[in-house]
Amino acid sequence: MAMKKKPVTGMKDIMPREMEIRDYVIGLIKETYRTFGFSSMETPCVEHIENLSSNQGGENEKLIFRILKRGEKLNLAEAASAADLVDGGLRYDLTLPLSRYYANHANDLPSPFKALQMGNVWRADRPQRGRYRQFMQCDIDILGEASCLAEIELIQATTTLLGRLDFHNFTIRINDRRILKAMAAYSGFAPEDYETVFIILDKMDKIGLEGVEGELLEAGYDKTGVERYLNLFRTVTSDTDGIRMLKEQLEGFLEPAIADELVMIIASVEQVKDADFRLCFDPTLVRGMSYYTGPIFEIAMDEYGGSVGGGGRYDEMIGKFTGQNISACGFSIGFERIIMLLLERDFKVPSAGTKTAFLIEKNMPADRLPAILEEAQKEREAGRQVNIVMMKKNKKFQKEQMQAEGYEEFREFFADRLG
Amino acid sequence: MAMKKKPVTGMKDIMPREMEIRDYVIGLIKETYRTFGFSSMETPCVEHIENLSSNQGGENEKLIFRILKRGEKLNLAEAASAADLVDGGLRYDLTLPLSRYYANHANDLPSPFKALQMGNVWRADRPQRGRYRQFMQCDIDILGEASCLAEIELIQATTTLLGRLDFHNFTIRINDRRILKAMAAYSGFAPEDYETVFIILDKMDKIGLEGVEGELLEAGYDKTGVERYLNLFRTVTSDTDGIRMLKEQLEGFLEPAIADELVMIIASVEQVKDADFRLCFDPTLVRGMSYYTGPIFEIAMDEYGGSVGGGGRYDEMIGKFTGQNISACGFSIGFERIIMLLLERDFKVPSAGTKTAFLIEKNMPADRLPAILEEAQKEREAGRQVNIVMMKKNKKFQKEQMQAEGYEEFREFFADRLG
Repeated sequence: MAMKKKPVTGMKDIMPREMEIRDYVIGLIKETYRTFGFSSMETPCVEHIENLSSNQGGENEKLIFRILKRGEKLNLAEAASAADLVDGGLRYDLTLPLSRYYANHANDLPSPFKALQMGNVWRADRPQRGRYRQFMQCDIDILGEASCLAEIELIQATTTLLGRLDFHNFTIRINDRRILKAMAAYSGFAPEDYETVFIILDKMDKIGLEGVEGELLEAGYDKTGVERYLNLFRTVTSDTDGIRMLKEQLEGFLEPAIADELVMIIASVEQVKDADFRLCFDPTLVRGMSYYTGPIFEIAMDEYGGSVGGGGRYDEMIGKFTGQNISACGFSIGFERIIMLLLERDFKVPSAGTKTAFLIEKNMPADRLPAILEEAQKEREAGRQVNIVMMKKNKKFQKEQMQAEGYEEFREFFADRLG
Repeated sequence: MAMKKKPVTGMKDIMPREMEIRDYVIGLIKETYRTFGFSSMETPCVEHIENLSSNQGGENEKLIFRILKRGEKLNLAEAASAADLVDGGLRYDLTLPLSRYYANHANDLPSPFKALQMGNVWRADRPQRGRYRQFMQCDIDILGEASCLAEIELIQATTTLLGRLDFHNFTIRINDRRILKAMAAYSGFAPEDYETVFIILDKMDKIGLEGVEGELLEAGYDKTGVERYLNLFRTVTSDTDGIRMLKEQLEGFLEPAIADELVMIIASVEQVKDADFRLCFDPTLVRGMSYYTGPIFEIAMDEYGGSVGGGGRYDEMIGKFTGQNISACGFSIGFERIIMLLLERDFKVPSAGTKTAFLIEKNMPADRLPAILEEAQKEREAGRQVNIVMMKKNKKFQKEQMQAEGYEEFREFFADRLG
């Protein structure tokens, strides 16, 4: 039977040119976060289906690739639904596995634990251009650090990384879940309405203040409350002054320390920053995941019409495993988007020296080959790339092709004379 | 609901100490093979179930983690067997995906294509000590090179890698499938019996020549033939002389060029080798996979009672996808076993300089933090690792713990005086 040549729907083969960039970026990520004291960790790609279906993952739970039970446990005849047939699933993010990992190993991990994870995740999304069903995620988390030192370090490390990748002029938008809630409370919304209100607020980029106002009124919210809410957004500025203004205005609804902390995060990062980016307070930033409990942030890159990373504090998630909450704050970097941007701008990986090809004529006598290999070995030991290949009939074409692959130097070895 | 803390059966969480070694080895593998002209490539972890179930994978096919169909395609009521419910599976090796990849992309790949793959594979094996259901494989393949230059380069690159990992005194055993067959043919076995004969021969390590003789007779083979077969093994030596002897003795059963090629592989590698290993001809080496067509090889390490890698030529596999055979030769490195050996010998990753911890007293005034961060940033830019953490009440214990994690230098910053 002929076999299928294409990869499975929505997943992709990665070609050498892209791999070179990926390997380079992976190396840079590991190196950059290492200097900030992060440790690499890894969990299996397969997770318990019960953990994946725990309602922490929101919409992503619908997109799980589920794995069939094996052996005697698989009982098709008695299965009432698909759920009876599966015992595992491919992870759809790295946050849930991190929480399980920490719950399982806390005693053997440093405190705070600064974790770097790079790994594939899977989501059975409708395939679309540039979005795949298997993609690499890169998550950085600090567990066990209650102070905003966690946020500061995460933002600083991540902007340092982006700077090293030669990204400029990007924006870190920052907000706090508790400010979001305080603004809603101050305006008279009921706690049970917050989620709906935030979903509408989240559209601010696209529909503007008037659009948000319209949708809130359409959803049936009280006109005075909506006006009060919108006025906050009309007057607030996207800097630390804006936060200070809200701190005063939201008195009684917002703990002042929350505003002070956000000011401290912004002021500290601003003062230390090397990379070329703006850090701005954005009270309209919502971020979808319901597990966030404090500061939230997102990286917007002008070159790319969306977010290339984001995260926040989620102090109550690990408690789902352990019964005891632990401070947690994390950043997820849009690895695939960064690779896409680098490919688009025709990024060249800093070279490791000349690439040389040794072309060997056919029928090279057996006793002459070792000397050629030894010569290659010397170059390779010095870290240079030497590719030994048999000389083809159309040598000119062969060399042109290899030049296109980056080979600059050619040495030819003929069977009947010295090379 | 409390969630499950342990990883799924047979898979493991990887702790920071092991990750450090893994990352180092991955880097060394990428770097070493790069100098030999190999390119990194990647395929999705999920493959078409039809491809996985194609009988190329032997026993491994029984161990596939199968993935449930999604949406409307999943029809439990009408499913006659589990096969109707699945459309994909987790790959159980990297050879089948490589073949599909090459069939799909040959026109866009160099010729020959020297491929390096590192990735997880999954097998639903009975869990046992040191063997996991998810494990990293590292495969190196040369596609489109018909001459034994492929074998020579693969063995040389791989032994160079092992040498750089400070492994000594290992053995590369080498044989050729066609010599195996010629020896069987010479002894009078019928082609349909070869597989059975080789399965018995493969036990030579454990049961010795007499054991093999006994089992062959017990299986009902002709005494004269068995005697003739065994005599070959009694007289052959494990060097190039042994191959030359067989070349003469098997005249009419073995093409002389096959023996010459094997001699050339051994002689060339021997002459160039830097690392400390032996390369020996082993006419009892069988290797299980039926897809091998030419030279086969295996790395035995004395420290570890088994193989830490092996491979061979499989010139007829890619044709299953394309309808046209292409020369192919590959090596699979036992990545997990190498990591296990390094962990056992308490391997230390070459250090990237001093690890420093900055301990910051609680309630550090907001305006003093940036100066501390700037100081850390300077160190980090120079590639040194600086971990900023809040000072704990029991500072002595905190420092002891950090010392155990490799922190050598500590700087303390107090809230009420200069650090």
